[in-house]
Amino acid sequence: MNEQISDTHTVIIGGGVAGFRTADTLRAMDEKQRITVFTREDYGECSTCAIPFVIGGELKDFEEMILHTPEDFEKKDIEVIISEVEEIHVDEGFLLYAGGKRIDFNNLVLATGRRPFVPPVPGTELNGVFTLSSLNKARRAYPEIIQAERVVVVGAGAIGLEVAAALNAHAEVTVVELLPNIFPRSLDPDMASYLQSHLEEKGIRILISTSLLSVNGHGKGGNGEVESVTVGLPSGEKREIPADIVVMSAGIRPEASLAEKAGISIGPTGGIETMPTLNAKQGRRILENVYAVGDCAEVKDGITFQPTLSPLASTAVRQAYIVAHNLSHEKSMVFAPTLSPNISLVAGMQMGSVGLTEAGARMSGLKVKASIAEGWTRSRYCPGRKKIRIKLIALGDRLIGAQFLSEEDVKERVNLTALSISQGLSILALASSERAYAPPMSLLTDPMVNALRKLMDKK
Amino acid sequence: MNEQISDTHTVIIGGGVAGFRTADTLRAMDEKQRITVFTREDYGECSTCAIPFVIGGELKDFEEMILHTPEDFEKKDIEVIISEVEEIHVDEGFLLYAGGKRIDFNNLVLATGRRPFVPPVPGTELNGVFTLSSLNKARRAYPEIIQAERVVVVGAGAIGLEVAAALNAHAEVTVVELLPNIFPRSLDPDMASYLQSHLEEKGIRILISTSLLSVNGHGKGGNGEVESVTVGLPSGEKREIPADIVVMSAGIRPEASLAEKAGISIGPTGGIETMPTLNAKQGRRILENVYAVGDCAEVKDGITFQPTLSPLASTAVRQAYIVAHNLSHEKSMVFAPTLSPNISLVAGMQMGSVGLTEAGARMSGLKVKASIAEGWTRSRYCPGRKKIRIKLIALGDRLIGAQFLSEEDVKERVNLTALSISQGLSILALASSERAYAPPMSLLTDPMVNALRKLMDKK
Repeated sequence: MNEQISDTHTVIIGGGVAGFRTADTLRAMDEKQRITVFTREDYGECSTCAIPFVIGGELKDFEEMILHTPEDFEKKDIEVIISEVEEIHVDEGFLLYAGGKRIDFNNLVLATGRRPFVPPVPGTELNGVFTLSSLNKARRAYPEIIQAERVVVVGAGAIGLEVAAALNAHAEVTVVELLPNIFPRSLDPDMASYLQSHLEEKGIRILISTSLLSVNGHGKGGNGEVESVTVGLPSGEKREIPADIVVMSAGIRPEASLAEKAGISIGPTGGIETMPTLNAKQGRRILENVYAVGDCAEVKDGITFQPTLSPLASTAVRQAYIVAHNLSHEKSMVFAPTLSPNISLVAGMQMGSVGLTEAGARMSGLKVKASIAEGWTRSRYCPGRKKIRIKLIALGDRLIGAQFLSEEDVKERVNLTALSISQGLSILALASSERAYAPPMSLLTDPMVNALRKLMDKK
Repeated sequence: MNEQISDTHTVIIGGGVAGFRTADTLRAMDEKQRITVFTREDYGECSTCAIPFVIGGELKDFEEMILHTPEDFEKKDIEVIISEVEEIHVDEGFLLYAGGKRIDFNNLVLATGRRPFVPPVPGTELNGVFTLSSLNKARRAYPEIIQAERVVVVGAGAIGLEVAAALNAHAEVTVVELLPNIFPRSLDPDMASYLQSHLEEKGIRILISTSLLSVNGHGKGGNGEVESVTVGLPSGEKREIPADIVVMSAGIRPEASLAEKAGISIGPTGGIETMPTLNAKQGRRILENVYAVGDCAEVKDGITFQPTLSPLASTAVRQAYIVAHNLSHEKSMVFAPTLSPNISLVAGMQMGSVGLTEAGARMSGLKVKASIAEGWTRSRYCPGRKKIRIKLIALGDRLIGAQFLSEEDVKERVNLTALSISQGLSILALASSERAYAPPMSLLTDPMVNALRKLMDKK
């Protein structure tokens, strides 16, 4: 235990949810520590997950995404410095910023986030090519985005599809996905195709197994304007798709270069290697006063226990709580291997996923079985009920993954599945668990129970 | 194992959800057994939970409540006999019905349901006093109910309040509850008062700690018409409340008289005593071929392990599955002690409850701690988010009960809590569990997590 806690200075690098939640939670747990947050942006804490909902008009403006301003944090005696950090000196306990200014720390929290992956093809520097990876980037792109009549979105993950759905009302939208299905990290093809049909019915064009070959425009460098993209179709043919703007959402990479320069260990995922306490390492040495949280941190997968990334805001806040606890109490909380439950709302359809996909499990060499079931969210005689499609993946008598598509109540099933997998419950235990019933809210026998029973019947 | 299964005849007494689900599930598991269901009503299987939603106009008519007609069952080779059963002869394996007709059985399933409790006060025989305990009773009462201008509902449980809310648009509704809060089986006063305020804002008058003294009318016996009720207020004063109709929803009792006459053991709750396999008993002797399911069956409470009733359709279908399994396979499935998770939708507010209330726990001699937390269902920048109020009750480091009030997403939390209590998870495990986040569907830190942390902070 730290006896002179008021002399302790914790410095947090990164102004995303991970960094600011760590600062805020630490302050709630410890009134005395000095806390400083470095951020590159001027607006404070915001949830970039909400960018598609501003673009779609569900939120009034970008200001609504801001959860807490720098002033909010200053009021809690958390210093916010708007600056890049240039160098970290771990052993000496200081860092340099803003052209060589020095600040000392006792504890360091790396919350440096992620950067968008942009495919290495010609033309991505043209005007009209956007990544929407921060509030300020989205804000600058906004006027051009909402006036575009032809939009190409590269990458069919959550942000790509949410943006596609948001722009679909006003523009002709084409989504280009390199992998054989949309939501490739979250869904198997037999679930993704169902969602894809839903999106295509809404008028979104989707090209899967299709590579981006080039972005084309007139003019050069900073003055060039995008006019089209060229893609390689699964047939081998090339096709040119006219585009007023191109939104790049082709994946993300952990932003760990500052840590790497400081000699902090980077794992096979490219993220900062962490211990269960979320401490960083230097080779075999545990850095007892250095932590990594959020999108830059490499953690363990909850099924395979292999290194993985969990670039979710929900993971970041759970990690922030653990690090804040370990910085203010005895170092006793650990981050358990993660199942990364995730949900997304795309054109009215809720997509939820937890654990491994069937494809992912097979790639990991696991001999899994899977079942698909369809049902309804409420009693058949209740107006407004929605169809639900469920896929479950099991190894022996345990679930290792699940996928859900419905216009309602997906989150419930994702969270219940996450809890039961993480606690090692059998399929039978989950199928037998008590569930509340009332006609306007649920079914007498939940479709999830039918899916579980179907799985139990498979040998 | 039964070698000559096609000679087996299973007779089920009771045409509620418990009886018909047992028949239907048994047929799905065993094509050969002869199956007969005795029911008093002519319409087949229906969900009486939906009666308030027909009255409120959410459902078009009573026909919509019918899940399966007798013809549906006949098609599956399930015989449906519309008749009272008069006598059961357990040891001899036969029963008498319709004035002494005899039918033999190998297995008997008692699914005789419940009867409404009507307070023993003068005037309840008057015309205009209804119990709504079956589809046919509700159908007969309907024309008078929807024309009533002044309605008194006796009993503030789920059905009472749902009916009150349904009639509130057209009539002046007063609810009279003997106990000190509404939903007395499900909510503590500090949660019930919140819901009561919501209902009062909608114009429903609610009198708690108030006893029904008499129902008053003109005329006598079959010709009398209700005109008012007289109640005893908590102050000791009497008050007369004008009423065109009175809806009795003052509780239910297990309907076990037929079983009792046959010498089958009745427990302290008045329900048919059951083994974990749901077999009935005769004193200390287990009746290996007699089962009880649904509202008439006494089971064990999931926290105290004391005898209890779980008169929920969701309990009935889970029991039906177990009994069908035990009748068609090796007798290997058991009904675990129950937490009776339940939800109800009243005037737009969802009420959910699981396990013991704080008051109930204290009455059982448990030294519990409790916390109340309020929060929101979705991100603050997402339009349409709803307030949620949560009460958690714990014994040591385990939850033993929870209560939820919100306009959305209550079921999720009830089911998650039921699973975690039944699996013996600690509060910390539940607080640490992974939860999916997306701004339009959830919060970064779920209010349930805040409530759990608040509870952990209590000594």
